[in-house]
Amino acid sequence: MNYKMMGRFLAQIVAVEAVFLLPALLISLFLGETGAVRGFLITLAAMGVVCGGLYASCRGAETLFGAKEGLVCVSAGWIVLSLLGALPFFFSREIPRYIDALFEIVSGFTTTGASILPEVEPMSRGLLYWRSFSHWLGGMGVLVFLLAVAPAGGKGSGFTMHLLRAESPGPDVGKLVPKMRTTALILYLIYIVMTVLNVIFLLLGGMPLFDAVCTAFGTAGTGGFGIRNDSIAGYSPYLQNVCTVFMLLFGVNFSCYYLLLMRKFSSVFKDEELRLYLGIFPGSALLVAWNIRGLYGTLEETFRHAAFQVSSIMTTTGFATTDFDLWPPFSKAVLLMLMIVGACAGSTGGGLKCARVLLLFKSLRRNIRQVLHPRKVQVVRTNGRVVGENVLDNTAAYLAAYMIILLGSFIFLSLDGFSVETNLSAVLACFNNIGPGLDAVGPTCNYAAYSIGSKLVLILDMLAGRLEIFPILVLFSGSTWKHS
Amino acid sequence: MNYKMMGRFLAQIVAVEAVFLLPALLISLFLGETGAVRGFLITLAAMGVVCGGLYASCRGAETLFGAKEGLVCVSAGWIVLSLLGALPFFFSREIPRYIDALFEIVSGFTTTGASILPEVEPMSRGLLYWRSFSHWLGGMGVLVFLLAVAPAGGKGSGFTMHLLRAESPGPDVGKLVPKMRTTALILYLIYIVMTVLNVIFLLLGGMPLFDAVCTAFGTAGTGGFGIRNDSIAGYSPYLQNVCTVFMLLFGVNFSCYYLLLMRKFSSVFKDEELRLYLGIFPGSALLVAWNIRGLYGTLEETFRHAAFQVSSIMTTTGFATTDFDLWPPFSKAVLLMLMIVGACAGSTGGGLKCARVLLLFKSLRRNIRQVLHPRKVQVVRTNGRVVGENVLDNTAAYLAAYMIILLGSFIFLSLDGFSVETNLSAVLACFNNIGPGLDAVGPTCNYAAYSIGSKLVLILDMLAGRLEIFPILVLFSGSTWKHS
Repeated sequence: MNYKMMGRFLAQIVAVEAVFLLPALLISLFLGETGAVRGFLITLAAMGVVCGGLYASCRGAETLFGAKEGLVCVSAGWIVLSLLGALPFFFSREIPRYIDALFEIVSGFTTTGASILPEVEPMSRGLLYWRSFSHWLGGMGVLVFLLAVAPAGGKGSGFTMHLLRAESPGPDVGKLVPKMRTTALILYLIYIVMTVLNVIFLLLGGMPLFDAVCTAFGTAGTGGFGIRNDSIAGYSPYLQNVCTVFMLLFGVNFSCYYLLLMRKFSSVFKDEELRLYLGIFPGSALLVAWNIRGLYGTLEETFRHAAFQVSSIMTTTGFATTDFDLWPPFSKAVLLMLMIVGACAGSTGGGLKCARVLLLFKSLRRNIRQVLHPRKVQVVRTNGRVVGENVLDNTAAYLAAYMIILLGSFIFLSLDGFSVETNLSAVLACFNNIGPGLDAVGPTCNYAAYSIGSKLVLILDMLAGRLEIFPILVLFSGSTWKHS
Repeated sequence: MNYKMMGRFLAQIVAVEAVFLLPALLISLFLGETGAVRGFLITLAAMGVVCGGLYASCRGAETLFGAKEGLVCVSAGWIVLSLLGALPFFFSREIPRYIDALFEIVSGFTTTGASILPEVEPMSRGLLYWRSFSHWLGGMGVLVFLLAVAPAGGKGSGFTMHLLRAESPGPDVGKLVPKMRTTALILYLIYIVMTVLNVIFLLLGGMPLFDAVCTAFGTAGTGGFGIRNDSIAGYSPYLQNVCTVFMLLFGVNFSCYYLLLMRKFSSVFKDEELRLYLGIFPGSALLVAWNIRGLYGTLEETFRHAAFQVSSIMTTTGFATTDFDLWPPFSKAVLLMLMIVGACAGSTGGGLKCARVLLLFKSLRRNIRQVLHPRKVQVVRTNGRVVGENVLDNTAAYLAAYMIILLGSFIFLSLDGFSVETNLSAVLACFNNIGPGLDAVGPTCNYAAYSIGSKLVLILDMLAGRLEIFPILVLFSGSTWKHS
């Protein structure tokens, strides 16, 4: 393990975070929120110390990084980012316990949107902005940002490739263009343009600028932190529908947008993952609308709530326009399934990802065919191309790890004494980076009542979900830390 | 597809079933249970017609069977067995609706033990015997029995190998001896001897003969149908402990017993699956005992109930000595996890099987190592031997199919309006062949309230669980029925 390289890399991440903290500080300064200003200033000082210390002690060493270093850097980077990012909440005394502040910011960076706050409206504007902005930054990835703007760490494209692979969601990472740095830059440009479009559409519906920016951050990162106690329920139907559409758009693989820009329309419309994703949405929304008929006054309202909640859960955003914990069991079951399926690979959404679900179905079909025709070699294809066996192996291992972490966390949480439904949906909602669960962690409730141990487990679940498990497993794997 | 061979094979199965129905008929005749006698006689007549018809219309054709035919025969055989085996309940009018009778006998043959009966004590002795005996027959497998006693269907060992592979639980089937028929015979002999031992131990505790035989059938098949309304709760602590031990013994891979008979002690004690299985049991029992401390009067009672329920759920038997639905959430979570893990491969138990869980963990570790050291070829070993990639692929596909069926069934059941906990545990309890679930399908409740559609889904789940998914998938796969 090249500790000096890693230290310098972490220092860069902290520096980036400090820069991104400045707008929030400005807001609090401008509005005279003294508590928040104190929190931001102490945090900036702490970041300065950490960053300077790391730079000073890690000079020299220019070796290239390998896969192991890449994975460890991603995990360690996200943990450092979270540990420091939680400080403003804590030092402003707006979230008095550090574990709660950490839960909140991990939930932000991992675009989960699970909160320990009973109500968000009393919070200062500066901290609300920081909270929502963490979604935006975490959605596309801090390391991807670093790749886009800075000559990141090592020089070889091998390392940057490993970084991007570790931070980007999905079973297989595709480079848009031969150079990784250009790929990262293109991704961020698309991301920024779409976020701005989202803000514009919200402003057109009469939403105040601050609300529009924060809501767009939460939508773009498929995060789900709201700035109102009732999430999106208090906004007009037009604004709710804008959110439904934009959540769906941010759940699409970003390489599809790049292909659209390159006018490669046919390869976008033939994309199997996109077709599955765009098929699941109306199918689920119709089933839910049918199931909740009669709960709302008009047909428009029924369809609006069904479409919004399905879009919100499937893209793993977690905004709500109604308390879906009061819906009948069938709708809740559909939402639980959507939590697991998740959005597209290469989007800002979480869950297993449609691409993986597709590969799992195809592997299964291959396996049945292999049993029926043992002498014929069967391959799995996606979009007409043969999928490598290593990708299939990886997908299978991912599912196994997913199940193991899910069950282990569920059992640990059960020690706190909440209902089976609460614990199971809490783990699903955090691990798949959604936010609200059912029962005691439903959309009108929060995670404050869990014990410190359970909160730590959920924090690890959120990180494991966002970083797609392996970087976190590698960080905790004994063989990573053996001398090398 | 060789329909004539298949027809003759099904005829053989029906003939075996008719023979096995005779003891139940004798009991009812002896006790003068007229309703049950009528039910058995009509059923035997129906079996005669089916068997004769199949024999008459399927003469000739001596071709060897392949993998596809083997799998289809297993599924079709079990379905025919169940359709006919349900008739005595229906025609005796002791279970008035045929779908309920079918649910009950499928639950029997698949060694699930889920019941639609609110109370079993009013049922006639003949039918109670048939119900419990279905566990014993289904536990080791009807087709394995056929292999042991008759020159089954085709002549090639390829076909019998496929049959045994399809009906025996576990990721990989090991022949004990080169000849399949001898293997089947040895398995059944061990099974019979152990069942007799179980009966003797129960008789020594003062249990009536009829109770002892039925309880031993339920234990040996890891089924769980009781003949008393309170399952095993009303029997003495000694009898409960005998059940705990024998359930555990029947959850062990039977090839271990063969190796013990061959005096290959070291290879038994080094068996990794056995070690995992025997490690999970005391670990889980201690955790549960700690969690339920204070619920029962004495320490002895606490440990007895904890050990019994853990043994019952982990071996997927489903007997109960106490209403574990009233236990705290942590104990319920441990039990839900044990439902999924299940017993050993090659035992009469269900669930994923310890061997598969072991392989999933090992594949995952291999995958992490592969990421850390991309240039080194990594293999998975069990008991010192390299596990074939096809076995690993199969295990991965099994997990994927398991998850898909689990989620699909859960969503379908949710249409009936029961709680999330009820539906999830109902699917887990049926699919893993356990029996009782939680909440509205807890150990003191039953499955009668579900709709016909849900019961059909649960019936398919039980069959898919017992036959390890693939035979059922093959039966419903379009490419099976294309001309060949």
